[in-house]
Amino acid sequence: MKFGGTSVADAEKIRAAARRAIRTQKAGHQVAVVVSAMGKSTDHLVDLANQISKCPSKREMDQLLATGEQVTISLTAMALEDMGASAISFTAGQIGILTDDVHAKAKIKSIDVRRLREQLNAGRIVIVAGFQGVTEQGHVTTLGRGGSNVTLVAIAAALNAEVCENYTDVDGIFTADPRIVLNARKIDRISYDEMLELASLGANVLHNRAVEFAKKYDVPIHVRSSQHNRKGTMIVAETESMERIVVSGVALKDKLARVTLKNVPDRPGVAAQVFQHIAAYHIVVDDIIQTIGDNKTATISFTVDTPDLPEARDVIDALCRSLKCDATFENHLAKVSAVGMGMRIHTGVAERMFAALAKAKINIQNITTSEIKISCLIDRSQGKEALRVVHDAFELGTKKRRKAKKK
Amino acid sequence: MKFGGTSVADAEKIRAAARRAIRTQKAGHQVAVVVSAMGKSTDHLVDLANQISKCPSKREMDQLLATGEQVTISLTAMALEDMGASAISFTAGQIGILTDDVHAKAKIKSIDVRRLREQLNAGRIVIVAGFQGVTEQGHVTTLGRGGSNVTLVAIAAALNAEVCENYTDVDGIFTADPRIVLNARKIDRISYDEMLELASLGANVLHNRAVEFAKKYDVPIHVRSSQHNRKGTMIVAETESMERIVVSGVALKDKLARVTLKNVPDRPGVAAQVFQHIAAYHIVVDDIIQTIGDNKTATISFTVDTPDLPEARDVIDALCRSLKCDATFENHLAKVSAVGMGMRIHTGVAERMFAALAKAKINIQNITTSEIKISCLIDRSQGKEALRVVHDAFELGTKKRRKAKKK
Repeated sequence: MKFGGTSVADAEKIRAAARRAIRTQKAGHQVAVVVSAMGKSTDHLVDLANQISKCPSKREMDQLLATGEQVTISLTAMALEDMGASAISFTAGQIGILTDDVHAKAKIKSIDVRRLREQLNAGRIVIVAGFQGVTEQGHVTTLGRGGSNVTLVAIAAALNAEVCENYTDVDGIFTADPRIVLNARKIDRISYDEMLELASLGANVLHNRAVEFAKKYDVPIHVRSSQHNRKGTMIVAETESMERIVVSGVALKDKLARVTLKNVPDRPGVAAQVFQHIAAYHIVVDDIIQTIGDNKTATISFTVDTPDLPEARDVIDALCRSLKCDATFENHLAKVSAVGMGMRIHTGVAERMFAALAKAKINIQNITTSEIKISCLIDRSQGKEALRVVHDAFELGTKKRRKAKKK
Repeated sequence: MKFGGTSVADAEKIRAAARRAIRTQKAGHQVAVVVSAMGKSTDHLVDLANQISKCPSKREMDQLLATGEQVTISLTAMALEDMGASAISFTAGQIGILTDDVHAKAKIKSIDVRRLREQLNAGRIVIVAGFQGVTEQGHVTTLGRGGSNVTLVAIAAALNAEVCENYTDVDGIFTADPRIVLNARKIDRISYDEMLELASLGANVLHNRAVEFAKKYDVPIHVRSSQHNRKGTMIVAETESMERIVVSGVALKDKLARVTLKNVPDRPGVAAQVFQHIAAYHIVVDDIIQTIGDNKTATISFTVDTPDLPEARDVIDALCRSLKCDATFENHLAKVSAVGMGMRIHTGVAERMFAALAKAKINIQNITTSEIKISCLIDRSQGKEALRVVHDAFELGTKKRRKAKKK
């Protein structure tokens, strides 16, 4: 089981998480619990570090941040013991979650599960600090964004767990963001690949690295609410039956900006030069489109997250001076996407999506596709409306609503 | 060097500590720095634990509390690096500060200094988390009250350090509490044994365990202020010349209560029964006086800290019912003590103290002595006055003041 920061934000929530772990144990399971840092405590630590140094070393930052989860594991163990359960907490170092030495985004190399098994076999509920690891030299590392989920899946894989239960503040994975699409439906089962596309498209429930890890070791993840006992969404290996569903979900990524470079010299290596330059400034580039223009020049266009635009602008302006090309910058964009295993065998998916957008008078500015995804770049002001019409076009809403529509 | 909680209470103070470490390194020394948790952060963690459980397990409490120092070590390393120094932080686990498994008051068994030496020899300033250790099985322990000073002395002993510098918010050890005795003088050198008596008598600068450790390994401790560069007090092995000073300092312990048991059956084992009973409730007993009364009964009287009185009262009332003896309880007491190596060879010390108290019309209710200490139990309302007159009686004040008196 894993409880994220909002599910362990205070003493009462930690007690609720403990009750859930005890209930699962009483149902006959061995239980390992991964916890994140409490609520905003990581922000508080980052703030402290920034008061000390503008650019703290990553090793010391990891040493600092790892305390957040260490606080939660001990409090969770206390809560369990207070309720009469037998429990023990472990930092990553204490159970040998070995990682490489890339601080701030370390990758797990191995977990020494002997100690975990010993404690589980002794009837204890084991609490493990998420998000952290330790190098062979004993330095503390952290696993980067979504790191607690990576810990969850890694522990589950190492223990050959039946399932990992990811407790969050939402009911599961939805066909669309329910805050925008009111009749969005909770998905019962979804494949790792679909989840990977949805996560990268802005369904912020599970970080891609955890899903990739789960896919690699075939660990089913149950994303569910810490507020009630209803089932959430199972993320599992794909089955043939999944292909019957053409589109599983739609996602909206807003706060996108587009950078367009015109008159780029069309010679080998120029594109690489552009993107290496941008990567060096840690600006994450989304979709890239390159077209050939006149006079042996190319047009390269790509999207970045809006918060990265000011820095991207500086980097690109400097680059354009040296390459003698022109750059334009457009903010106020969004991307609506449809994802589904069924696209592999069903045709007409793209047409249906474009037709729905056209009918709603939403102009498509770019199209990008993968085997199981279609994305359209649109104006941000029309983003929510686009999400709703695409959701409707693939009849993803709750049955009640769909019935109502059919009448 | 060690910086206590008040000396690392915020970013600015951590930076000041870092500057001091760099200055010491630049003067040609290898520097290891032990730090405590920041200001009130331990209180905050204890408060969190109490919200979760009324009686949290000591193992989990240690796992929790150890995060306080881990936060400070990483921030201190960041501050050092930010100032251009080379630094690295270590938890107790990372440098193998092995302890027994008595959680909450573990004792250090050994320190693996190999890693420390490696880093020191590489020119790094090493930051070590105080107050904590790790068992052979990798469980986190804490060293109890004054634990960071124990870490300081243990690291210094293991490294054969020239000196350990204990930076605090006071200028050193004084002949009396300067908040009460305005002309109290900073002591330049004091022996471990005198310091042990003064610490147990209420001079809350260094906890006894650290001083005992320093005495055992003959590590000089320099208690000094983190606010300026003036020398503080050196705590060192005794030398013959120290015996020339009759009284080194005087101390006041107020908030004392006295419990008196009358008509206690005078048979072997009764006193043991009384104190075992009290110890079982974790009530710390100070001085004990036993006198034989009439009819084969004894009077046993002892002092406890005032905050422990309500619980002691319950325990003693129950005991008296079973032993059929009578108990009286007096709050509002205090103890004034004079400490000095010179008492071993000089006579007339007690008389001088009693005369001074008598002249000030302060009634002595009990007297207890050791080889280098005389203590008088008095009324709390006269405690501060008693401290001043005893301080004056042994001419401990600053020279200016003493000269003024002689005129």
